[in-house]
Amino acid sequence: MRTEEKIGIILKREALTLSAAESCTGGMISHLITTVSGSSAYYLGSVTSYAISVKEKVLGVPSRVIKEKGVVSAEVAAAMAEGVRRLTGSTFAVATTGLAEGGDEHYPEGSVWIGVSGPHGTNTLLYQCHGGRKANIRRFATAALHFLLDCIDGYIIRYKSTEETK
Amino acid sequence: MRTEEKIGIILKREALTLSAAESCTGGMISHLITTVSGSSAYYLGSVTSYAISVKEKVLGVPSRVIKEKGVVSAEVAAAMAEGVRRLTGSTFAVATTGLAEGGDEHYPEGSVWIGVSGPHGTNTLLYQCHGGRKANIRRFATAALHFLLDCIDGYIIRYKSTEETK
Repeated sequence: MRTEEKIGIILKREALTLSAAESCTGGMISHLITTVSGSSAYYLGSVTSYAISVKEKVLGVPSRVIKEKGVVSAEVAAAMAEGVRRLTGSTFAVATTGLAEGGDEHYPEGSVWIGVSGPHGTNTLLYQCHGGRKANIRRFATAALHFLLDCIDGYIIRYKSTEETK
Repeated sequence: MRTEEKIGIILKREALTLSAAESCTGGMISHLITTVSGSSAYYLGSVTSYAISVKEKVLGVPSRVIKEKGVVSAEVAAAMAEGVRRLTGSTFAVATTGLAEGGDEHYPEGSVWIGVSGPHGTNTLLYQCHGGRKANIRRFATAALHFLLDCIDGYIIRYKSTEETK
């Protein structure tokens, strides 16, 4: 079973919702999520923020954070996830900012910071691979969905189980 | 050459920019556009508005239009394209609202309204196909990119040529 199908089953069962904010993955995560039949029950939508102006204006990423930490950073990934979660009102949000093609002063080509925000807080992960633009985009999206599933699982095990046993 | 590559060449040459608003295509258009190397030069970003709340709140589609015309309609496709163009400040915007799986009271499964907004105004097109959820999403995205290319070509031939000969 594909990761996006597993995510769908859990979100549907728990009546939770999801949104996404994508930079380097450019819509691939949203596309994978929406290939799942019935995804409109839990998926609210996404923002692809290719331009910095969209990151700042639509997602509310502070320009100070972009200047100080760099557009490819844990802090920007976290702010993007938190921004789209706030914008859509979803339970969880996943975000990516990375380098599918060409490196920058801090990271080589094939690096992506993934952010996942939810009721538990926000987590970030650095993932790196080597495959050229298209393969990197696909691997980044897959890594982001894996990390999202881990975070959702963790939340349900830690917090929802605790609530139920109260 | 793929349609998204042709679009990229023209937009780059003319120094024009692009954004997208996707409902039924769920990120596929944005994904196709960003597989093109160098697309960050002209592609600003997109909004995937799976939930009606995202169509209204983020893209500014009036709830009256959704109620009166239906979520799958020329009017909503136009309002989505105009909304994301306003949000990102792009020269052109393409939008989709349709039924990849299951029909509604007005249209059968496999129907999509495509909207393209630009300096020339806004155009809409109804496209219909039969292929099941995943194939429909891919065909909708391809049809939207074709229509977008037609509109960009038309704009350049009609308006830009006129400006140059003034």
